[in-house]
Amino acid sequence: MSEVRLLAPCEPSKVVCIGVNYVDHAKEMGRELPKEPLMFLKPSTAVIGPNEPIVYPRLSQNVHYEAELAVVIKKRARHVKAAEAKDYILGYTCAVDVTARDLQFADGQWTRGKSFDTFCPLGPGIVPASQLDPMNLGIRLTVNGEVRQEGNTSQMVFNVYQLVEAVTAVMTLLPGDVILTGTPPGVGPIKPGDVVAVTIDGIGTLTNPVVAEA
Amino acid sequence: MSEVRLLAPCEPSKVVCIGVNYVDHAKEMGRELPKEPLMFLKPSTAVIGPNEPIVYPRLSQNVHYEAELAVVIKKRARHVKAAEAKDYILGYTCAVDVTARDLQFADGQWTRGKSFDTFCPLGPGIVPASQLDPMNLGIRLTVNGEVRQEGNTSQMVFNVYQLVEAVTAVMTLLPGDVILTGTPPGVGPIKPGDVVAVTIDGIGTLTNPVVAEA
Repeated sequence: MSEVRLLAPCEPSKVVCIGVNYVDHAKEMGRELPKEPLMFLKPSTAVIGPNEPIVYPRLSQNVHYEAELAVVIKKRARHVKAAEAKDYILGYTCAVDVTARDLQFADGQWTRGKSFDTFCPLGPGIVPASQLDPMNLGIRLTVNGEVRQEGNTSQMVFNVYQLVEAVTAVMTLLPGDVILTGTPPGVGPIKPGDVVAVTIDGIGTLTNPVVAEA
Repeated sequence: MSEVRLLAPCEPSKVVCIGVNYVDHAKEMGRELPKEPLMFLKPSTAVIGPNEPIVYPRLSQNVHYEAELAVVIKKRARHVKAAEAKDYILGYTCAVDVTARDLQFADGQWTRGKSFDTFCPLGPGIVPASQLDPMNLGIRLTVNGEVRQEGNTSQMVFNVYQLVEAVTAVMTLLPGDVILTGTPPGVGPIKPGDVVAVTIDGIGTLTNPVVAEA
Protein backbone atom coordinates (compact mmCIF):
# COMPACT_ATOMS: atom_id res chain seq x y z
CA MET A 1 0.00 0.00 0.00
CA SER A 2 2.89 2.40 0.66
CA GLU A 3 3.95 2.12 -2.98
CA VAL A 4 0.64 3.00 -4.60
CA ARG A 5 -1.70 5.95 -4.64
CA LEU A 6 -5.36 5.12 -4.06
CA LEU A 7 -7.86 7.02 -6.18
CA ALA A 8 -11.43 7.67 -5.13
CA PRO A 9 -13.19 4.28 -5.25
CA CYS A 10 -15.82 5.45 -7.76
CA GLU A 11 -16.42 8.26 -10.23
CA PRO A 12 -19.95 9.43 -9.46
CA SER A 13 -21.88 11.40 -12.06
CA LYS A 14 -23.55 13.01 -9.06
CA VAL A 15 -23.34 13.01 -5.28
CA VAL A 16 -26.74 13.34 -3.62
CA CYS A 17 -26.40 14.48 -0.01
CA ILE A 18 -28.94 14.25 2.79
CA GLY A 19 -29.00 17.08 5.32
CA VAL A 20 -29.98 16.89 9.00
CA ASN A 21 -30.27 13.09 9.05
CA TYR A 22 -29.02 12.35 12.60
CA VAL A 23 -31.20 13.36 15.55
CA ASP A 24 -28.38 14.83 17.66
CA HIS A 25 -26.85 16.72 14.71
CA ALA A 26 -30.25 18.34 14.11
CA LYS A 27 -30.17 19.45 17.76
CA GLU A 28 -26.67 20.93 17.55
CA MET A 29 -27.66 22.86 14.40
CA GLY A 30 -30.87 24.09 16.08
CA ARG A 31 -33.06 22.52 13.40
CA GLU A 32 -36.26 20.51 13.53
CA LEU A 33 -36.15 16.99 12.14
CA PRO A 34 -37.13 16.97 8.47
CA LYS A 35 -40.41 15.23 7.58
CA GLU A 36 -38.85 13.94 4.35
CA PRO A 37 -35.17 13.46 3.42
CA LEU A 38 -33.63 16.90 2.73
CA MET A 39 -31.56 16.68 -0.46
CA PHE A 40 -28.75 18.73 -1.90
CA LEU A 41 -26.08 17.97 -4.48
CA LYS A 42 -22.30 18.11 -4.60
CA PRO A 43 -20.69 18.21 -8.06
CA SER A 44 -18.47 15.36 -9.26
CA THR A 45 -15.57 17.83 -9.40
CA ALA A 46 -15.58 17.92 -5.58
CA VAL A 47 -14.59 14.24 -5.29
CA ILE A 48 -11.07 13.30 -4.13
CA GLY A 49 -9.56 10.04 -2.92
CA PRO A 50 -7.76 8.92 0.22
CA ASN A 51 -4.79 11.07 1.32
CA GLU A 52 -5.54 13.72 -1.28
CA PRO A 53 -5.61 17.21 0.26
CA ILE A 54 -8.77 19.09 1.16
CA VAL A 55 -8.05 22.58 -0.16
CA TYR A 56 -9.20 25.32 2.25
CA PRO A 57 -10.65 27.97 -0.09
CA ARG A 58 -9.74 31.65 0.13
CA LEU A 59 -13.46 32.50 -0.01
CA SER A 60 -14.22 30.92 3.40
CA GLN A 61 -13.11 31.58 6.96
CA ASN A 62 -15.05 28.72 8.54
CA VAL A 63 -14.63 25.30 6.92
CA HIS A 64 -16.11 22.32 8.81
CA TYR A 65 -15.72 18.54 8.60
CA GLU A 66 -18.81 16.26 8.49
CA ALA A 67 -18.20 12.48 8.61
CA GLU A 68 -20.67 10.45 6.55
CA LEU A 69 -21.48 6.93 5.38
CA ALA A 70 -21.48 6.92 1.56
CA VAL A 71 -23.75 4.59 -0.42
CA VAL A 72 -22.42 3.62 -3.87
CA ILE A 73 -25.04 2.69 -6.47
CA LYS A 74 -24.67 -0.52 -8.50
CA LYS A 75 -27.12 -0.11 -11.36
CA ARG A 76 -29.53 2.35 -12.91
CA ALA A 77 -32.14 3.11 -10.24
CA ARG A 78 -35.47 4.96 -10.53
CA HIS A 79 -38.57 4.56 -8.36
CA VAL A 80 -36.90 1.91 -6.20
CA LYS A 81 -38.80 0.93 -3.05
CA ALA A 82 -36.92 0.65 0.25
CA ALA A 83 -37.61 -3.08 0.35
CA GLU A 84 -35.74 -3.54 -2.96
CA ALA A 85 -33.03 -0.92 -2.33
CA LYS A 86 -30.33 -3.40 -1.35
CA ASP A 87 -30.29 -4.83 -4.90
CA TYR A 88 -29.30 -1.42 -6.25
CA ILE A 89 -26.40 -0.79 -3.84
CA LEU A 90 -22.89 -1.80 -4.85
CA GLY A 91 -21.50 -1.10 -1.41
CA TYR A 92 -20.41 1.41 1.18
CA THR A 93 -17.45 3.70 1.79
CA CYS A 94 -16.45 6.62 4.02
CA ALA A 95 -16.94 10.27 3.08
CA VAL A 96 -16.42 13.77 4.39
CA ASP A 97 -19.06 16.36 3.49
CA VAL A 98 -16.63 19.29 3.74
CA THR A 99 -18.64 22.47 4.29
CA ALA A 100 -17.80 26.19 4.21
CA ARG A 101 -20.21 26.97 7.04
CA ASP A 102 -20.03 30.75 6.55
CA LEU A 103 -21.04 30.52 2.88
CA GLN A 104 -23.68 27.87 3.61
CA PHE A 105 -25.46 30.19 6.02
CA ALA A 106 -24.85 33.43 4.06
CA ASP A 107 -26.45 31.94 0.93
CA GLY A 108 -29.32 30.02 2.55
CA GLN A 109 -28.87 27.55 -0.30
CA TRP A 110 -26.14 25.11 0.73
CA THR A 111 -24.68 24.45 -2.70
CA ARG A 112 -21.84 26.99 -2.85
CA GLY A 113 -20.50 26.20 0.61
CA LYS A 114 -20.42 22.47 -0.14
CA SER A 115 -19.31 22.39 -3.79
CA PHE A 116 -15.68 23.54 -3.74
CA ASP A 117 -13.18 21.29 -5.50
CA THR A 118 -11.85 18.70 -2.98
CA PHE A 119 -14.91 19.05 -0.69
CA CYS A 120 -15.98 15.38 -1.14
CA PRO A 121 -13.29 12.92 0.00
CA LEU A 122 -14.34 9.29 -0.63
CA GLY A 123 -12.65 6.02 0.34
CA PRO A 124 -10.61 4.05 1.16
CA GLY A 125 -12.46 1.25 -0.66
CA ILE A 126 -15.99 0.00 -1.29
CA VAL A 127 -17.22 -2.80 0.98
CA PRO A 128 -19.85 -4.87 -0.89
CA ALA A 129 -23.45 -4.43 0.25
CA SER A 130 -23.65 -8.19 0.88
CA GLN A 131 -20.96 -7.93 3.57
CA LEU A 132 -22.27 -5.07 5.68
CA ASP A 133 -25.43 -4.11 7.57
CA PRO A 134 -25.66 -0.33 7.02
CA MET A 135 -28.18 0.10 9.86
CA ASN A 136 -25.74 -0.40 12.74
CA LEU A 137 -22.26 0.91 12.01
CA GLY A 138 -20.12 2.95 14.36
CA ILE A 139 -18.82 6.11 12.66
CA ARG A 140 -16.22 8.48 14.05
CA LEU A 141 -14.06 11.34 12.90
CA THR A 142 -10.77 12.55 14.27
CA VAL A 143 -8.81 15.74 13.64
CA ASN A 144 -5.09 15.30 14.28
CA GLY A 145 -5.94 12.08 16.14
CA GLU A 146 -8.49 13.65 18.53
CA VAL A 147 -12.03 12.25 18.35
CA ARG A 148 -14.51 14.96 17.29
CA GLN A 149 -17.50 12.99 16.01
CA GLU A 150 -18.80 9.68 17.29
CA GLY A 151 -22.08 8.12 16.28
CA ASN A 152 -23.83 5.13 14.84
CA THR A 153 -25.79 4.79 11.62
CA SER A 154 -28.68 3.42 13.70
CA GLN A 155 -29.26 7.07 14.75
CA MET A 156 -30.23 8.15 11.22
CA VAL A 157 -33.63 9.79 10.84
CA PHE A 158 -34.11 8.05 7.46
CA ASN A 159 -32.16 4.84 6.96
CA VAL A 160 -30.10 3.93 3.91
CA TYR A 161 -32.88 2.04 2.14
CA GLN A 162 -35.43 4.79 2.79
CA LEU A 163 -32.96 7.28 1.31
CA VAL A 164 -32.60 5.22 -1.89
CA GLU A 165 -36.39 5.23 -2.21
CA ALA A 166 -36.64 8.98 -1.60
CA VAL A 167 -33.85 9.96 -4.00
CA THR A 168 -34.98 7.66 -6.81
CA ALA A 169 -38.53 9.01 -6.48
CA VAL A 170 -37.00 12.22 -7.86
CA MET A 171 -34.09 11.31 -10.10
CA THR A 172 -32.36 8.41 -11.84
CA LEU A 173 -29.24 7.19 -10.07
CA LEU A 174 -26.51 5.78 -12.33
CA PRO A 175 -23.83 3.16 -11.55
CA GLY A 176 -21.18 4.76 -9.34
CA ASP A 177 -23.44 7.56 -8.14
CA VAL A 178 -23.18 8.26 -4.43
CA ILE A 179 -25.63 9.11 -1.65
CA LEU A 180 -24.11 10.81 1.41
CA THR A 181 -26.33 9.90 4.32
CA GLY A 182 -25.84 12.78 6.75
CA THR A 183 -23.50 13.42 9.65
CA PRO A 184 -23.63 12.57 13.35
CA PRO A 185 -23.16 15.32 15.98
CA GLY A 186 -19.86 17.00 16.73
CA VAL A 187 -19.22 19.03 13.58
CA GLY A 188 -16.55 21.68 13.88
CA PRO A 189 -13.81 23.64 12.13
CA ILE A 190 -10.64 22.50 10.40
CA LYS A 191 -7.65 24.56 9.29
CA PRO A 192 -4.69 24.11 6.96
CA GLY A 193 -2.21 21.68 8.49
CA ASP A 194 -4.91 19.50 10.08
CA VAL A 195 -5.39 15.83 9.22
CA VAL A 196 -9.00 14.58 9.08
CA ALA A 197 -9.80 10.86 9.41
CA VAL A 198 -13.20 9.15 9.17
CA THR A 199 -13.51 5.56 10.40
CA ILE A 200 -16.60 3.43 9.85
CA ASP A 201 -16.84 -0.04 11.39
CA GLY A 202 -16.30 -2.73 8.77
CA ILE A 203 -15.16 -0.27 6.10
CA GLY A 204 -11.89 1.30 7.27
CA THR A 205 -10.40 4.75 7.58
CA LEU A 206 -10.39 7.62 5.09
CA THR A 207 -7.61 10.11 5.85
CA ASN A 208 -7.13 13.52 4.22
CA PRO A 209 -4.82 16.40 5.06
CA VAL A 210 -6.03 20.01 4.84
CA VAL A 211 -3.96 22.55 2.88
CA ALA A 212 -4.37 26.25 2.17
CA GLU A 213 -5.38 27.31 -1.31
CA ALA A 214 -2.29 28.31 -3.32
CA MET B 1 -35.44 18.58 -39.63
CA SER B 2 -38.75 16.72 -39.65
CA GLU B 3 -36.91 13.45 -40.27
CA VAL B 4 -34.47 13.65 -37.37
CA ARG B 5 -34.68 13.79 -33.61
CA LEU B 6 -32.52 16.47 -32.00
CA LEU B 7 -30.75 15.48 -28.80
CA ALA B 8 -29.71 17.94 -26.12
CA PRO B 9 -26.85 19.97 -27.64
CA CYS B 10 -24.38 19.01 -24.89
CA GLU B 11 -23.95 16.41 -22.15
CA PRO B 12 -23.04 18.44 -19.07
CA SER B 13 -21.34 16.75 -16.13
CA LYS B 14 -23.12 19.36 -14.06
CA VAL B 15 -25.62 22.18 -14.49
CA VAL B 16 -24.91 25.13 -12.20
CA CYS B 17 -27.97 27.33 -11.80
CA ILE B 18 -28.16 30.92 -10.59
CA GLY B 19 -31.19 31.91 -8.54
CA VAL B 20 -32.88 35.32 -8.34
CA ASN B 21 -30.74 36.87 -11.11
CA TYR B 22 -33.29 39.21 -12.72
CA VAL B 23 -34.44 42.28 -10.79
CA ASP B 24 -38.15 41.91 -11.59
CA HIS B 25 -38.16 38.16 -10.87
CA ALA B 26 -36.69 38.90 -7.43
CA LYS B 27 -39.62 41.30 -6.88
CA GLU B 28 -42.26 38.76 -7.93
CA MET B 29 -40.72 36.18 -5.59
CA GLY B 30 -40.59 38.73 -2.74
CA ARG B 31 -36.83 38.34 -2.37
CA GLU B 32 -34.02 40.84 -1.91
CA LEU B 33 -31.37 40.95 -4.61
CA PRO B 34 -28.48 38.64 -3.73
CA LYS B 35 -25.14 40.29 -2.95
CA GLU B 36 -23.34 37.45 -4.70
CA PRO B 37 -24.59 34.96 -7.30
CA LEU B 38 -26.84 32.41 -5.57
CA MET B 39 -25.89 28.93 -6.80
CA PHE B 40 -27.65 25.61 -6.89
CA LEU B 41 -27.17 22.47 -8.98
CA LYS B 42 -29.32 20.35 -11.24
CA PRO B 43 -28.11 16.79 -11.92
CA SER B 44 -27.12 15.71 -15.43
CA THR B 45 -29.99 13.20 -15.35
CA ALA B 46 -32.44 16.13 -15.55
CA VAL B 47 -31.26 17.14 -19.05
CA ILE B 48 -33.51 16.52 -22.07
CA GLY B 49 -33.41 17.82 -25.64
CA PRO B 50 -35.85 19.69 -27.87
CA ASN B 51 -39.34 18.21 -28.19
CA GLU B 52 -38.68 15.66 -25.44
CA PRO B 53 -41.44 15.64 -22.83
CA ILE B 54 -41.18 17.33 -19.45
CA VAL B 55 -42.60 14.69 -17.09
CA TYR B 56 -44.90 16.19 -14.42
CA PRO B 57 -44.00 14.20 -11.29
CA ARG B 58 -46.58 12.58 -9.05
CA LEU B 59 -44.81 14.15 -6.03
CA SER B 60 -45.70 17.72 -7.02
CA GLN B 61 -48.93 19.63 -7.47
CA ASN B 62 -47.32 22.91 -8.60
CA VAL B 63 -44.74 22.64 -11.38
CA HIS B 64 -43.52 25.96 -12.90
CA TYR B 65 -41.63 26.94 -16.04
CA GLU B 66 -38.60 29.29 -15.85
CA ALA B 67 -37.03 30.40 -19.15
CA GLU B 68 -33.26 30.82 -19.00
CA LEU B 69 -30.21 31.61 -21.13
CA ALA B 70 -27.80 28.65 -20.86
CA VAL B 71 -24.01 29.15 -21.09
CA VAL B 72 -22.10 26.11 -22.42
CA ILE B 73 -18.47 25.83 -21.28
CA LYS B 74 -15.72 25.19 -23.87
CA LYS B 75 -12.71 24.14 -21.79
CA ARG B 76 -11.67 23.34 -18.25
CA ALA B 77 -12.26 26.50 -16.22
CA ARG B 78 -11.16 27.38 -12.67
CA HIS B 79 -10.53 30.84 -11.18
CA VAL B 80 -11.46 32.54 -14.44
CA LYS B 81 -11.84 36.32 -14.23
CA ALA B 82 -14.85 37.99 -15.88
CA ALA B 83 -12.55 39.76 -18.35
CA GLU B 84 -11.30 36.38 -19.64
CA ALA B 85 -14.62 34.50 -19.36
CA LYS B 86 -15.49 34.73 -23.06
CA ASP B 87 -12.51 32.48 -23.92
CA TYR B 88 -14.03 29.69 -21.81
CA ILE B 89 -17.52 29.81 -23.32
CA LEU B 90 -18.37 27.54 -26.24
CA GLY B 91 -21.70 29.21 -26.82
CA TYR B 92 -25.27 29.75 -25.76
CA THR B 93 -28.54 27.86 -25.90
CA CYS B 94 -32.06 28.03 -24.44
CA ALA B 95 -33.10 26.26 -21.25
CA VAL B 96 -36.07 25.74 -18.96
CA ASP B 97 -35.36 25.52 -15.24
CA VAL B 98 -38.45 23.40 -14.52
CA THR B 99 -39.31 23.74 -10.84
CA ALA B 100 -41.68 21.92 -8.49
CA ARG B 101 -42.49 25.10 -6.57
CA ASP B 102 -44.28 23.29 -3.73
CA LEU B 103 -41.27 21.05 -2.99
CA GLN B 104 -38.82 23.95 -3.44
CA PHE B 105 -40.55 25.93 -0.70
CA ALA B 106 -41.35 22.95 1.56
CA ASP B 107 -37.69 21.89 1.66
CA GLY B 108 -36.07 25.32 1.87
CA GLN B 109 -33.22 23.77 -0.12
CA TRP B 110 -34.17 24.01 -3.80
CA THR B 111 -32.49 20.82 -4.98
CA ARG B 112 -35.34 18.31 -4.80
CA GLY B 113 -37.87 20.56 -6.50
CA LYS B 114 -35.51 21.27 -9.40
CA SER B 115 -33.80 17.88 -9.88
CA PHE B 116 -36.49 15.60 -11.29
CA ASP B 117 -35.63 13.71 -14.47
CA THR B 118 -36.60 15.89 -17.50
CA PHE B 119 -36.50 19.15 -15.48
CA CYS B 120 -33.69 20.66 -17.59
CA PRO B 121 -34.64 20.99 -21.27
CA LEU B 122 -31.73 22.38 -23.36
CA GLY B 123 -31.56 23.40 -27.03
CA PRO B 124 -32.24 23.64 -29.90
CA GLY B 125 -28.56 24.22 -30.75
CA ILE B 126 -25.50 26.03 -29.46
CA VAL B 127 -24.75 29.42 -31.03
CA PRO B 128 -20.99 30.10 -30.82
CA ALA B 129 -19.88 32.71 -28.31
CA SER B 130 -18.18 34.64 -31.12
CA GLN B 131 -21.55 35.20 -32.83
CA LEU B 132 -23.64 36.50 -29.93
CA ASP B 133 -23.54 39.30 -27.34
CA PRO B 134 -25.04 37.64 -24.23
CA MET B 135 -25.61 41.01 -22.51
CA ASN B 136 -28.56 42.14 -24.65
CA LEU B 137 -30.77 39.28 -25.79
CA GLY B 138 -34.54 39.25 -25.73
CA ILE B 139 -35.87 36.12 -23.98
CA ARG B 140 -39.48 34.98 -23.89
CA LEU B 141 -41.50 31.93 -22.96
CA THR B 142 -44.87 30.83 -24.21
CA VAL B 143 -47.27 28.18 -22.93
CA ASN B 144 -49.57 26.88 -25.66
CA GLY B 145 -48.57 29.90 -27.76
CA GLU B 146 -49.44 32.54 -25.12
CA VAL B 147 -46.58 34.76 -23.95
CA ARG B 148 -45.90 34.28 -20.22
CA GLN B 149 -42.35 35.56 -19.76
CA GLU B 150 -40.70 38.42 -21.60
CA GLY B 151 -37.35 39.90 -20.63
CA ASN B 152 -33.87 40.80 -21.75
CA THR B 153 -30.55 39.45 -20.53
CA SER B 154 -29.49 43.07 -19.92
CA GLN B 155 -31.73 42.88 -16.82
CA MET B 156 -29.53 40.27 -15.12
CA VAL B 157 -28.21 41.19 -11.68
CA PHE B 158 -24.88 39.45 -12.46
CA ASN B 159 -24.01 39.19 -16.14
CA VAL B 160 -22.77 36.06 -17.91
CA TYR B 161 -19.08 36.83 -17.50
CA GLN B 162 -19.47 37.70 -13.80
CA LEU B 163 -21.27 34.36 -13.33
CA VAL B 164 -18.37 32.43 -14.91
CA GLU B 165 -16.02 34.18 -12.49
CA ALA B 166 -18.22 33.45 -9.47
CA VAL B 167 -18.82 29.78 -10.30
CA THR B 168 -15.19 29.03 -11.16
CA ALA B 169 -14.09 30.66 -7.89
CA VAL B 170 -15.78 27.65 -6.28
CA MET B 171 -15.54 24.71 -8.67
CA THR B 172 -13.91 23.50 -11.85
CA LEU B 173 -16.16 23.66 -14.90
CA LEU B 174 -15.56 20.98 -17.55
CA PRO B 175 -16.21 21.10 -21.31
CA GLY B 176 -19.96 20.84 -21.92
CA ASP B 177 -20.89 21.97 -18.42
CA VAL B 178 -23.75 24.44 -18.32
CA ILE B 179 -24.55 27.56 -16.31
CA LEU B 180 -28.24 28.54 -16.20
CA THR B 181 -28.33 32.28 -15.73
CA GLY B 182 -31.64 32.88 -13.97
CA THR B 183 -35.14 33.64 -15.17
CA PRO B 184 -36.97 36.90 -16.02
CA PRO B 185 -40.34 37.69 -14.38
CA GLY B 186 -43.58 35.93 -15.22
CA VAL B 187 -43.04 32.45 -13.83
CA GLY B 188 -46.14 30.33 -13.49
CA PRO B 189 -47.62 26.84 -13.56
CA ILE B 190 -47.76 24.25 -16.30
CA LYS B 191 -49.84 21.09 -16.53
CA PRO B 192 -49.83 17.88 -18.56
CA GLY B 193 -50.92 18.63 -22.12
CA ASP B 194 -49.24 22.05 -22.23
CA VAL B 195 -46.49 22.94 -24.69
CA VAL B 196 -43.69 25.17 -23.37
CA ALA B 197 -41.48 27.16 -25.76
CA VAL B 198 -38.50 29.39 -24.93
CA THR B 199 -37.20 31.76 -27.59
CA ILE B 200 -33.98 33.74 -27.23
CA ASP B 201 -32.95 36.28 -29.90
CA GLY B 202 -30.20 34.93 -32.11
CA ILE B 203 -30.49 31.40 -30.75
CA GLY B 204 -33.91 30.03 -31.68
CA THR B 205 -36.77 28.24 -29.97
CA LEU B 206 -36.72 25.29 -27.57
CA THR B 207 -40.09 23.52 -27.47
CA ASN B 208 -41.12 20.82 -24.99
CA PRO B 209 -44.50 19.22 -24.29
CA VAL B 210 -45.58 18.42 -20.73
CA VAL B 211 -46.84 14.91 -19.92
CA ALA B 212 -48.10 13.26 -16.74
CA GLU B 213 -45.88 10.70 -15.04
CA ALA B 214 -46.91 7.21 -16.06
